Parts: sequence; C-alpha cells; structure tokens
Amino acid sequence: MNDMNNYGEKSCEMRKYMYVSEKEEQYRCCGRQQHREDIIVKTGSVKTGGGNFTMIAGPCSVESEEQIISIAKAVKAAGANLLRGGAFKPRTSPYDFQGLKAEGLRLLKLAKQETGLPIVSEIMGVNDLELFEDVDLLQVGARNMQNFDLLSELGKTGKPVLLKRGLGNTLNELLMSAEYIMSKGDTQVILCERGIRTFCEHTRNTLDLSAVPVLKELSCLPVIVDPSHATGYARLVPPMAMAAAACGADGLMIEVHNDPENALCDGPQALKPDEYLKLSDKISRIRKAIED
Amino acid sequence: MNDMNNYGEKSCEMRKYMYVSEKEEQYRCCGRQQHREDIIVKTGSVKTGGGNFTMIAGPCSVESEEQIISIAKAVKAAGANLLRGGAFKPRTSPYDFQGLKAEGLRLLKLAKQETGLPIVSEIMGVNDLELFEDVDLLQVGARNMQNFDLLSELGKTGKPVLLKRGLGNTLNELLMSAEYIMSKGDTQVILCERGIRTFCEHTRNTLDLSAVPVLKELSCLPVIVDPSHATGYARLVPPMAMAAAACGADGLMIEVHNDPENALCDGPQALKPDEYLKLSDKISRIRKAIED
Amino acid sequence: MNDMNNYGEKSCEMRKYMYVSEKEEQYRCCGRQQHREDIIVKTGSVKTGGGNFTMIAGPCSVESEEQIISIAKAVKAAGANLLRGGAFKPRTSPYDFQGLKAEGLRLLKLAKQETGLPIVSEIMGVNDLELFEDVDLLQVGARNMQNFDLLSELGKTGKPVLLKRGLGNTLNELLMSAEYIMSKGDTQVILCERGIRTFCEHTRNTLDLSAVPVLKELSCLPVIVDPSHATGYARLVPPMAMAAAACGADGLMIEVHNDPENALCDGPQALKPDEYLKLSDKISRIRKAIED
Amino acid sequence: MNDMNNYGEKSCEMRKYMYVSEKEEQYRCCGRQQHREDIIVKTGSVKTGGGNFTMIAGPCSVESEEQIISIAKAVKAAGANLLRGGAFKPRTSPYDFQGLKAEGLRLLKLAKQETGLPIVSEIMGVNDLELFEDVDLLQVGARNMQNFDLLSELGKTGKPVLLKRGLGNTLNELLMSAEYIMSKGDTQVILCERGIRTFCEHTRNTLDLSAVPVLKELSCLPVIVDPSHATGYARLVPPMAMAAAACGADGLMIEVHNDPENALCDGPQALKPDEYLKLSDKISRIRKAIED
Repeated sequence: MNDMNNYGEKSCEMRKYMYVSEKEEQYRCCGRQQHREDIIVKTGSVKTGGGNFTMIAGPCSVESEEQIISIAKAVKAAGANLLRGGAFKPRTSPYDFQGLKAEGLRLLKLAKQETGLPIVSEIMGVNDLELFEDVDLLQVGARNMQNFDLLSELGKTGKPVLLKRGLGNTLNELLMSAEYIMSKGDTQVILCERGIRTFCEHTRNTLDLSAVPVLKELSCLPVIVDPSHATGYARLVPPMAMAAAACGADGLMIEVHNDPENALCDGPQALKPDEYLKLSDKISRIRKAIED
Repeated sequence: MNDMNNYGEKSCEMRKYMYVSEKEEQYRCCGRQQHREDIIVKTGSVKTGGGNFTMIAGPCSVESEEQIISIAKAVKAAGANLLRGGAFKPRTSPYDFQGLKAEGLRLLKLAKQETGLPIVSEIMGVNDLELFEDVDLLQVGARNMQNFDLLSELGKTGKPVLLKRGLGNTLNELLMSAEYIMSKGDTQVILCERGIRTFCEHTRNTLDLSAVPVLKELSCLPVIVDPSHATGYARLVPPMAMAAAACGADGLMIEVHNDPENALCDGPQALKPDEYLKLSDKISRIRKAIED
Repeated sequence: MNDMNNYGEKSCEMRKYMYVSEKEEQYRCCGRQQHREDIIVKTGSVKTGGGNFTMIAGPCSVESEEQIISIAKAVKAAGANLLRGGAFKPRTSPYDFQGLKAEGLRLLKLAKQETGLPIVSEIMGVNDLELFEDVDLLQVGARNMQNFDLLSELGKTGKPVLLKRGLGNTLNELLMSAEYIMSKGDTQVILCERGIRTFCEHTRNTLDLSAVPVLKELSCLPVIVDPSHATGYARLVPPMAMAAAACGADGLMIEVHNDPENALCDGPQALKPDEYLKLSDKISRIRKAIED
Repeated sequence: MNDMNNYGEKSCEMRKYMYVSEKEEQYRCCGRQQHREDIIVKTGSVKTGGGNFTMIAGPCSVESEEQIISIAKAVKAAGANLLRGGAFKPRTSPYDFQGLKAEGLRLLKLAKQETGLPIVSEIMGVNDLELFEDVDLLQVGARNMQNFDLLSELGKTGKPVLLKRGLGNTLNELLMSAEYIMSKGDTQVILCERGIRTFCEHTRNTLDLSAVPVLKELSCLPVIVDPSHATGYARLVPPMAMAAAACGADGLMIEVHNDPENALCDGPQALKPDEYLKLSDKISRIRKAIED
C-alpha cells in the first residue's frame, strides 16, 4: 500500500480522538458509558437536556431595578424560560466596572419575583456562596473553568451549575472540570460552548460548534451555546444561534439589553428585545425541522 | 468613565472588525459596496448564491469507472446537483497516492455524461489547465489559496472557481485571493469554509461557521461549507452540515463514498449514499425553516 | 500610492500593537510610564529583575522528605537560588494525584531549612493562605491567571507573587492580572511565560518567547520563563532555556527530579540534577555574552 | 494507580510526539534514520549546517540599483554572507506592489557582482524558473509551502532551496514538503521558521523557536530563523535573533533597509545597517558561548 501517510494522517486523527475516548473511563459521573441516557438538569421548574430546550436571556450586567425588570419581562414575553444577569463581573481590568455584586443579586431576585423566571448568575469565589442562596443556577465563567477550588465547593451545594468552556481549553478539560463538580455530590451540570481563542480577527472569539455533537457523544450532560460572547457582535448572534440549534444544542444563552448603546458592559453583542423575539421564533422552527 | 478597559476591549474588537471593513474598498470585484446584490455563480445549469442552494457531493478521489459512476448516480438520486471527484490530489507526502490525474478526469467526465451532473475537481498547477477543459467548476484547494500565480491564471479562463479557505488564513486574505481571480477577467468565484487550524483535538480542523455570515456581509460571493474536511469524521458531518444551512450558507460540499472503509483517501469522513440521502432531506427542512 | 494593503497590513499590526500600548495608561502599578525603572522583586534574600537573574528549580511535586531534600541540595549545588515544589497540584482530573498539600508544604520548609533556599509553591485557593505563611514566593498557576478573587487576596499579603500566563491569554490580560494583585497593596509580581495553546503538535505547548521583550517593554516587572511546561520534554528544556536567557529573561523556572521515570507528575519534562548543572553553566555563559 | 489521567496526559503528549516520530520512516531523504549526519547545504561558496552559521540579510524588496547595492555593501560589511532581495512579491492583495520582477532580479545580480555575495530570492511560479538561472538559492515562501507543483519542479533544478514554514503548518508538513523537493533529485534544502498564526496580538506572527531543536532532531537539514517576519517589529528582531542562535539555529534571515520609513514593503520590521552590525556581533558572542 503506497498510501502510508494517508493512513498515518487518519490514524493520527483517530488516535487524537481515541485519546479523548480513552478518557471516557475517567468520565465517571458525566460519561456515556453503558449507553446511559441524557442527564436532565432541573433549574427550578425548567428542564434542560433530554429533548428539553432552554432559552436563557438577559443583560450582561444587572444595572438597575428598572433595567433588569423591564428586560426580564421582555425576554419572558419573547419565550425565554431562564433569566441571566451578571452581579459579580470578572473583568480583565481591576479598574473597570466590577458589577453591582450583592445589590445586583437583590435586583435579580426582584426580577425573578416579578416574572417567575428562575435566575442564573456568575459566582467568582467560594466565599460568596451565601449570597447566591436564592440563585437557581450557578454560573462558572470561562476564566474559572479550571478554578478547581471553586468547582469542588459548588459540587457540595447540590445546586445545578452552568459551566462555561475556557477560551483555551479542550473538551476533555471541560468534561474533567464537570467531574470536579459532580464527583463531590449529586450536583447537575450544564456545559456551555462560548467560543475559543484562535487567529481569527472577524469575531471576538471563534465559536466551535462541533463541540456540541462531540460533547453530547462523550457525556450525558446538556450542552448549550452562548453566541453573544462567541461572536461579540449582535448582528452575528442570530445566525450563530440558529446554527447551534441546528446541530443539536440543548439551549441558548443570549445577551439581551433594552439599550445596548448605553450598556455598562458588552453592549455591541446584545440583542434588543424585538430582535430576540424574532430570533426565538426562528429557533422554534429550526428545532421542529430537525426532529425525526 | 471608570470603564475604559471595557470600551478599550470593545473598541479593540471593533477596530479589528473595522480593519476588515476598511479593506472593503479593496474588495473591488467581490465587495458589498453600493449594496450590490448577490453574485449568482453559474456552473453549467446550476446556480449558486442569491437564494440558490447547491449540493456538491462525491468521493474524495476518483478511483475507478465503476466507483465514480455508481456514486454519481447515488448522490444525484439523493438530491446533489454537482458532482465532486479528486483527480489531482495534493497530499502532504510525495509517497502517498497522488490521484489518477488525467485518467481520473476522464472517468469523472464519463460520470458527467451518465448523470448529467456538472463536475468540480481540484487543479494544482497552471500547466494542467488544458486537462480541465471539460471540468465545469475549477477547485482551488486550501493549500493553494495564496498560490497567486495559479489564481491569476484561473482568472483568465472565465470559468467559475471554487476557492477554499486556507487552514491558517483570515477572511480578509480569502477575499483578497478572490480578487486575484476576479480582477483578471469576468470569472465568478464560490468561497468555501472548510475548517481552520486551532488547538482543538476533537476534530480534524475547527469549522469556523461565523465565516459564513461575515463573508456574505463583506462580499457578494456565494459561500459554501465543507463539513467533511472540517470535522474529519462522518458522524459529525450531518450536524455540522445542518448548522451551516441554518446560518445561511449557499451550499454544501460533502464527501460521499460507496465503500468508505476501503476508500483510498479520507474514508473516515465520507458518508454512505443512504446517510447522504437522509441528510439532504434534513437540509431542505432547515432551509424552509429559516425562510422569512 | 498603489500599496494600500501593505500599509493596511502594517497599520493593522501597528493598530493591534497600539491597542496594547494604549492600555499602558491602565498599567497603573506595573507600567513603563515616565520611563520608570525595573521593579526588583525580593524573595527572601534573592533579587529578581533589574539585572538580577533568578534560577528556580525543583520537582513538579513534593513527594517525600528524602526526595525534596536531595533535590534541593542538588539544585543548590548546581546554582539554583530558589527552590520550587508543588504541594497543591491543579490537575485536569479530580481522580489524579492532587499533591501532598499541607504535608507537602511542611516537607518543602524542611528543605528550605536544610539548604537555605527560599521556596516557591502554587496556591490554589484563598482559604489556604495560612498554610503558605512560610512560603517565600506565592505562585499563581496558568489556570488561575484570571481567578480575580485569588489575585485580589494575594495582593493584600504583601508577599511576592509569581504569576504564570494562562495558556489562552494575551499579554494585556497577563498585565491586567498583575494589576489586580498590585493595586491591592505593595505586593511585587514576577511574570512567567510558560507556553500557549496553538495547533502545534511537537511540543506540549508553544513557548512564546517574544513575550519576554514585549512584557519588559510594557511593564517594569521581571519576566521569567518556564521551558519545562512549555515544551513538555526534558531534551527540549536546555535549548529553550538558553533561548530565554538570550532574549532577556530575568530568570528560569525549571523542573528537576532525581528519578524522572518514577515521578508522580510530569516526569518526561524533568531534568536530572547533572543535566541541570550542565545547563546552568551554559546559561551563565550566554548571560555574559549578551552583556553590553 | 490513581494517576491515570496524569499518564493519560503524558501519553497523549508522547503519542502526539510519537506520531511525528513514526513519520520518520517517511522522511526518506531528510530524516535522521541511521543517525545520519547533518546535511551541509552549499550556496555558492557559502555552507549552511553542520556547524556552519549563515547570515542572510537584505531588503524585503529590491527597489532600485542604488538601494540594493548600498544595502548589499552594508550588510556584507556587517558580516552577512548571503544577500536577500525580493523581486516577485507574494502580496495578499493584487492591487499592491508586486515587486520589480525580472528587473528586480537583474538589479540583484548587479549587487552580487559588486559584492560577491551569493543571492537568494523568492520564486512564485514554475514558469519563472528561467529568470532565476543566476539566483544561487531559490526561496519558497510560506504561502507556497504546500504548492506541490512548484516544489517538484524545484527539486529537478539541483539548486539549493530555502523552504519557509507556512503560517498554519505543522513540522511534519514542513518536512514532507522538503521530501517533495528532495525526492525529485539531489537538491538540498534549508528549512526556515518564520512564525505561525496564533491568537497573540503583540507580534505579527508567533515565533515557534522550539521548531529549531525538533526539526534538527527529526531531520538532517539545516534550520534557519527569520525574526523579521515572525515579529513584524524591528525592535523585536535582535532579541529574537539572539534567542534563535542560542537554541541552535544554523542561520538567520534578517531584513535590512537603508531607509525603513520609506520602504515599499514591510519597513516597520527592517533593521538599519548599523543596528544589523551591532546585532551580528551579539550573535557571534552567543554562538561562542554555546559551543561545547
């Protein structure tokens, strides 16, 4: 056979892939061994995974009572079933807006009472856990994906955790981080692809959608996609959100703001409520189209 | 303003983006200036772009008359309207199978006569042009995306060209390569995203689907996606193909083989005819779902 | 001027670079504004920066009293002036060896008493600070480079911090993380380049040595290099260590083990004491060669 | 053994590395099998490899007789033993300066006659070979590293070839491209690392210096480094050139221009003759320092 390199190449790819598969035995809590069924994560009354599609929406940061409540009502009307809002903001610079912190969480809870939407917010440190008592879904940001102390503590809370993939992390590393959480108790985890670091300059990060089918193949956990942070531009959020739904994602996390121009953080990537409404209709149609 | 870095970050992203847009003035032949309409590329009777979706399918390499004709009939029956088949194979190693060359093109033409499908095949050198006289769509592979001598010569043929993005190339570089072709005559170009090089190990390359909406925003050219080379695994081709259709691609180039296990090249990423048939039905449903 | 794209390209590069420079105003504690002189970080009696070159050496993990003390004596004899040893190990998997923790720190202190070498060890959580009371230099690992809660707490200790660059982080992000530490008090920071994530498969990570001159240009902080984690192979450590010294690094952090084959962690990248001795002689000769 | 993932990780790295080594059997012309000695490439009277260090210098583009001759004299005086000058310029845009072409080669030959320095220039197409008859070293640029038609033709000339690594190519791909050249005749090849595409924004490309020891381990070919294109900034060229010499490179290719501000191409990365003189002294001192 004069085609050694060809097989060399393939076997390299396969070996790389096998390398991931080999690790399956390490995916003691989240893996697909024995063809286990999908894990369905429950956030309040909202189910994610096993055919349940979750629409998470809200502003990057909670800025005021008026802002979070009006956005909460708008996204609920547009079909969102979970409200996001940042209170503790992990910012590249210590001199930037760091979020309203405790006050932000208080306002987020008001919005929850007003709309009945369960809430998700990012937690940055183990000593903030008490403040997050009424937060339904605890988010671990990309920067903390391998903050193992935080992951282990969250695992003991029994609360569902939304774990975002780090900008420079492999899928094996993401799944092992889920193991840090799940091996500590009966905590459930939702995985989130939100873009990786590459040489590409046309988007803020590069959305790696192939992560969706691969993660669902290797693990039983639900996988959602955040096209807002992945692209960095509102106009690119709808096409990428539709693509995520088409390749089998279990949900979408999308930033929506009533006044993007004046948002305190990441305005350029936020949809306006009416744009979100239009998008969520498209998403429903795509989900119907891919049903068998 | 205590949020400088935030705006710093955004303005960085925007600047990067502007950098691309600035270049629009350089996109003299393919750009969106004056809100020009989509360019519709005609390959024989097949239209690509401007709402026309093209399904290109066939084996990585033409291996025999029986092989290419049986696959051609199968993909046509499954809804493909263009037949692909490699005759000149750009292989990493000089010691690997290099394709059947002239004989491969002869067999490809037989399949065209049998099925009526226009044909696309990769050209690697300016001195092979005569051999490609009956090939309807000339493909430039990822490795030759910046082989400017080849691009300039193809621009003089007046034939449509399928230009694949290089593994390490930006979208600006891809569009400037299209300019090398188009500035030489009235040649039309179809752009193809087929995955980029990143640190990810779970796929052969990383499919950058955000390239689809961005390329269609910056240029008037049709943009298709090759999920076979992007993922490297047959089982990942359907979800990524569906995602490509959902985010607005103008077509798909998919490897189909009647006997992947024994393919001379890239068998692991080839769909079987029945898998392709099932996929093309899903694609139609998604395309209907995203219509306004 | 028919050379627009050329200037386009350059201005893109320059703009990217300016983007970093613009940020200089944000480098309030570590920046080069007003041509400030180098910050000299003092770890016990050991100075780093301002012309002082620091040789940090030791095992990836502290494994036993015999192991750490014998290695400590060997690296001291070979010219090291700081002893490294991991007690809390941030491992990708929760099922892997996590380090000897408190006991590991106790043994590391014994080695310090035996040899007089100040010690550096990685801290993973804010609640472990007490245990690190006798550790001279607190290391923040690549995975925690943007664990802002940890950085802020370390900033209040007044102790010097060794901050490693994350695998997917830019130099601007690294410097802003140094600001998180320095803005909290009079803490000093040593920056460490240890490789980034790229498509390259021939090394564990890709050592970005250009980070050394750029970081020294943008900031006043000392910059050291860790060729062990960057390359992942002992035989590549000497050439990369020599290259780091040649381009102006202020020190080297190198893994040395008396029995690499049986190391509990990262054996393949550990030098044996005699190899380290030979290397440190080469380093001295290169440092002399580049003096003006 | 509770350390599986640890070994998993290591074995992954090793496997990746093995993957490259496995390929050694494919390195029929350039490989280290049977512990073959270094190949010494002869360009006119200049030897590269096997302990012979080559200093290639000159402008990015030949612009005029006065320019190329004055620069040729200056770099010769500063210790360069090979003159570079671009005549055919592969530019991202077809609307940019494409080089003086045949006239540029004529001027380059005049500079060769004036100074006695052998000359190296980039060839972009198989049909230009005649024009390069008097060029001593034929350069294949990064964009054409996998232009297999060009590589095969160059292999038949018997002339030495300088093969640059592509921005998105692995070392295995670079070596297989060398095989395309060498398997066609007795042609000798010099490999050149000139930076790869990564997420880093502080340099034009990311210089992968670990490629130097790895390439010399896998193959018998000389390996040189081009810090000008790798960094994109003149002030970063000296430290990276010194680093390249320190890790065992067999030579340096550096852009030198008498008037960088007004260079028609890549001015920002060009050294002035006096800067080059100072650098070449440092290089000699480093080479002496690393001798055993």
